[in-house]
Parts: sequence; structure tokens; C-alpha cells
Amino acid sequence: MAIVAIVGAGMMGSGISWPLSDNGHEVRVVGTHLDDEIIRGIKFDRVHIRHQRAVGENVTAYYLSELDQAIQDAQVIVCGVSSPGVDWFVDTMTPYFKPQIPVLLITKGLMGSANGDLKIFPTYMNERLPEQLKDKINFSAVVGPCIAQELAAHRQTAVYFVGSDEKILEYLRGLFSTDYYHVYTSTNLLATETGVALKNAYAIAINIAIGWYQLSGQDGLAHMYNPQAALFAQALHEMWILTSKLNAPMDEFVNLTGSGDLYVTVFGGRNARLGQLLGQGYSYEESLKKLDNVTLEGVHILNVIGTSLPKLADRGIVDLLDFPLIMHLFAVINQNAEINIPWDRFYRQKRN
Amino acid sequence: MAIVAIVGAGMMGSGISWPLSDNGHEVRVVGTHLDDEIIRGIKFDRVHIRHQRAVGENVTAYYLSELDQAIQDAQVIVCGVSSPGVDWFVDTMTPYFKPQIPVLLITKGLMGSANGDLKIFPTYMNERLPEQLKDKINFSAVVGPCIAQELAAHRQTAVYFVGSDEKILEYLRGLFSTDYYHVYTSTNLLATETGVALKNAYAIAINIAIGWYQLSGQDGLAHMYNPQAALFAQALHEMWILTSKLNAPMDEFVNLTGSGDLYVTVFGGRNARLGQLLGQGYSYEESLKKLDNVTLEGVHILNVIGTSLPKLADRGIVDLLDFPLIMHLFAVINQNAEINIPWDRFYRQKRN
Repeated sequence: MAIVAIVGAGMMGSGISWPLSDNGHEVRVVGTHLDDEIIRGIKFDRVHIRHQRAVGENVTAYYLSELDQAIQDAQVIVCGVSSPGVDWFVDTMTPYFKPQIPVLLITKGLMGSANGDLKIFPTYMNERLPEQLKDKINFSAVVGPCIAQELAAHRQTAVYFVGSDEKILEYLRGLFSTDYYHVYTSTNLLATETGVALKNAYAIAINIAIGWYQLSGQDGLAHMYNPQAALFAQALHEMWILTSKLNAPMDEFVNLTGSGDLYVTVFGGRNARLGQLLGQGYSYEESLKKLDNVTLEGVHILNVIGTSLPKLADRGIVDLLDFPLIMHLFAVINQNAEINIPWDRFYRQKRN
Repeated sequence: MAIVAIVGAGMMGSGISWPLSDNGHEVRVVGTHLDDEIIRGIKFDRVHIRHQRAVGENVTAYYLSELDQAIQDAQVIVCGVSSPGVDWFVDTMTPYFKPQIPVLLITKGLMGSANGDLKIFPTYMNERLPEQLKDKINFSAVVGPCIAQELAAHRQTAVYFVGSDEKILEYLRGLFSTDYYHVYTSTNLLATETGVALKNAYAIAINIAIGWYQLSGQDGLAHMYNPQAALFAQALHEMWILTSKLNAPMDEFVNLTGSGDLYVTVFGGRNARLGQLLGQGYSYEESLKKLDNVTLEGVHILNVIGTSLPKLADRGIVDLLDFPLIMHLFAVINQNAEINIPWDRFYRQKRN
């Protein structure tokens, strides 16, 4: 039995508590300053108010003010905050980081920088550490199809734990694997993390076609899967190219983060809903209002990509012609451009 | 304006007539001996009885007995029969094949052989030609997401025309491209054709999880996308490995046939329905009965793959451990095995 502290009590942070609890580990879910209501609910009657489900029997909830107590003797720390919370996570947790405590990230994203360089979070987090801890903390990550509420319901899935240290990955795999949460390991951190970071933005684009369908309905026998599928193909194509331009080894990426993760994101969550509203003809501002102005991870990463790609192109690292879909979505969301999917610039072939 | 003869008047064969007709070409749709009722319907009131829609204004329907007349002066022949009809197509059409008339295949599949070798249809068809025509007829093919009834409804999609001759591909692209049917070209015939051939079998497997959901419904907030996505990822992984083992160059395959084509097949047609019935707990025989014992392309290709892979493994060309999903589906359909998805044998990593 291990003690695992999860920082961030939202859907995903708490979602990952289910396999751990089912395996009999002591799970301590710590809310951020945004999660007080969730923690209060669990403390009151064990029900996670957003999951609408009681947490597992080995789960204890802690307010952020109880962080000291929650981290005491923890053998693993899980980062379950949303992508805009990454700086907060590192700064808040630095006093608790120890070389012997691996950190597992379920937070997804890429960090941009002034010259356009993109960094995966495990790399970025390490750089943000104080000197004495740099390169001493192991940051591994979870990638693969995993909608949190489905994890809570014990739906089958298969994911990768990715990181630089195979022994740590194996240790983590042992803690988390269940008969419904199938864990594989890979040291291809760069490719897999880049893939999962991009999926939220591309899921918005694919859902535009779902929005069209919601607006127009069936036409005779015809639904509207052709455009979804063509957008899916182009999305994967652009994700692939961008990942390869970051010098990532292109192996598991293809199969896992490049497809399963994108697939599951198309069908779940608020990024998907945003795409549908855009497809129905609402502007980005109108759509956002309908979504109660929530923070959308897809928009966050879209802005990172949309501002970084032109800089990378200026430096000759990428060619903007390889990214017609994401650049169009960026224009729709940032410059109020009309949706006009650039079908005739898709599938750009490898040049010789 | 060109004259294009389409042989096979089913959903796909006639589906491809829409962009051609919209471009003002003279389209001649020839029924096989299985299509008499369809041809009769078009001749009577222009409605294609399976599409439930009138064909385009430049389309004329021909019975098989009128083949001579239909092919006269045709500049392109389209093969629109189902995969079990490939031999019939070659043998019937051989008298009409001429070096200057390209043949475009929308039929998908792989041909097995006694030693396990798998052949894509363009290769197989060429071998089946009489000596004097061998290597003289250009067989190109269409790959990419394209549900026939959606094509008829002018839904947006983007596909590849693939073949060995770039000039012919460009010529065909010019004939077929419209503002809803976006055509790209590639000479990577082997990879793309292998991918599209496999998708129908894997779409059955992914739909098993959809069948589970149809049976069990929601659990709290949880739908059942995690297992679909994990199956999708594994499907693409196995398709990728098999294609690479056939020595195909692995480029566009990843993006197009490997994902868009699989995606669209998951959501459409009878292969999908078979998977759902299996997921609901029906045996293969019971499922087939519910589907009126139709010929399923997915089962056809599954049998080709399921019998070929062990032979290829014996010859050291593939490793069966790389194909747990398709071999399990083969056992379910051919040996009445219980469904027991081999989750813990997924995502097999590249060995060093």
C-alpha cells in the first residue's frame, strides 16, 4: 500500500483516484483554491459534486490549507491542476518536492515562449524548479484516452505512463493498473506529451462539423461523418507534423496520443461543445457566453500554438502551409474570422 | 466533358456519380447481375432505390446486358463492385480494357494467397489480366473518408486518389474534384490501399464497445468513449504495423487511411452494426441473422487477415503478438470465442 497525494480536485485530478483507491492505496486529494466546494462536498458526504458520485473508500479530501498534512509521507505526487495552473503547481509544491518522490502529471499542455519555442510541461516544470532541485525531480505523465467520469465508472481504457525513468514508470504502473485501467509505459515523453497537448485544440475543430449537423440535421440518409473524418485526418496530420518538428521520435505517438486521445476528446467535454457552437454559427464570444465563460484548455493551447507557429515559421523550423486547420481555427477565435474550412489546403504531402 | 463508366451500381458505385455529374461529365452507371432492381428504378423515375434519392442529371443507368453500349467511348472506367466481386470485375471487363483508359477502384480489400501473401487489388487485378494486357492498364484507387450517402448529399470530404502514374491521377482529380469532394493525389498506393482494406474489419472491433454502451447505457455522467478510443488506438496501431510489414512507405497512411477512413467507418454501415450486435452479446451467427445474412466487407477482409497472419508469422514476416485485437475478433467470428478484449496485450511497443 502506498500513499499518493493528488493536487487538484477537479474532474481529472479526482478521476485518477478511482484506480488507486480500488488498488487499496491511501489516496489524498488536495483541492486548489478553486476546489473548496468540491472538498467540502467530499468531506461532508463523500460525494464529489462534479462527478456526482461518491469517491472511493480509500480517498480522503484536503483543503489547500491542509496541504502539509496531505503531503506528509506521500510516496507519489500527482499533478491534477488545469494547464493554466502549472506555474502555481510548481511554486506551491516546490517545498514538498523530494528526489525520491516521483511526480505524475495528468495536466496537459505546452508552454510557449517569446521566440516561439514550445515546451512540454515535464521539461518546463524542471526548468522552473530552484537550482538545488533541477534535474533531481522525476516528472512523468499520463497520456491516452481517459475521460474522467468514465474512469470513475470503471469503463475500460488503455493508457501510457511516459517519462524518462523506466523503473519509476514500472513502479507507477504497479500502483495504478487495474482490470479496467490498463497502463503501458514508454520513454517517448516528448512525442506523446506534445500529442495530448494539441488534442484539445483540434477537438474544437472537428466538432465544428458536428455543429453543422446539429444545425442542419439529416439529409435523406446522410448524416455528417465525412467532414468530421476529414477534419480528424487533417488534425492528426498536423499533430504529427508539429510533433516531428519538435524532434520527437515518432513511434507510439501515432497510435496512442495521435488517435485514441483525439478520438475521446472529440466526444467529451467543453472543448467539444465550443466547436459545436461555432459550427452552429455562433461567434467565439457568443459561444463562450453560452459556456458560462469557463476556462477552456483547448483555447489555451490554441493560443499557444497560434502565436508560436508563426514565430517558428520565421525561424525556418516549421512551414505554416503545413498547419492550415489550426491556423484557421486560431483566426476564427482570435480575429473573429468566418468559418471557412480550408479543405483544399489539407493533406499536404511530404515534400522531397 | 468526359464519359465515365461506373461498373457496380450499389451505394458506393453510384455514390461516386454525384461529383462527376455535378461537373457535367457523362456518367454511365452499369449494374452488375445483383443490381437489376437498382437499374430498373433509375430507368423508371431516376431514383436510386438504396440511396432513396434521384441520381444527378448527367447520369444514365445501364443493365449489365447493356455493357457494350455503356462502355462505348468511355474515357475512364470506375470499379464499384464489392470486394468479393473483384474476379468477376476483371474477367467481365477484360474485353473492354485498353491502355489509354484508366481504371479507378473504389472497391476496397486485400487478396490472400496460399502462402499468406497479401495483395492490394490494383496489384492483384494486374496479375489477373491476360498476358497481352499485363502492366498496360492503369489501376488507380480512391481512399479516404467517404460514406456514399453523404457524398450524394454533398457533404464535405477530402480524399486521396492513389496510383502509380501522377499524370493520370491529376487527370482523374480534374474530373472528380468539386467544392465538396476535395481530391488529393499520392503515389503511395501500397500503404493507403492496405489501410483502407483493413478499416472495415477494425470498425467491427471498435463497435463492440458501442454495443456495450447500447446494452448498459449511461452510468452517472459516464458514457463509453474510453473503450472505443482505446480500441481505435489499437486498431490504428495494428493497421500501421501490418502495412509497414508489407514494405509500404509509411507517410500519408498515418493521416488519411489510418485515421479518417477508420473514423468514418466506425460510424457508418453494416460492419459497424455487426460490431454493436456482438457487443450486445449476440453470437456472430445470431448477429448475421439480424443483418439478413448480408455480405459484410468487414468479415470478408477479417477472414483474409485472420488466415494470412498466422502464415506470415510462420514465415517470420510478422509477429502475431502485434495483432491481438484482430486475431481476437477473428476467433470471435470464426471459432465462436467469447468476447474478451485483450486489453493487456495492446500498444505493443517497438522492440529494439
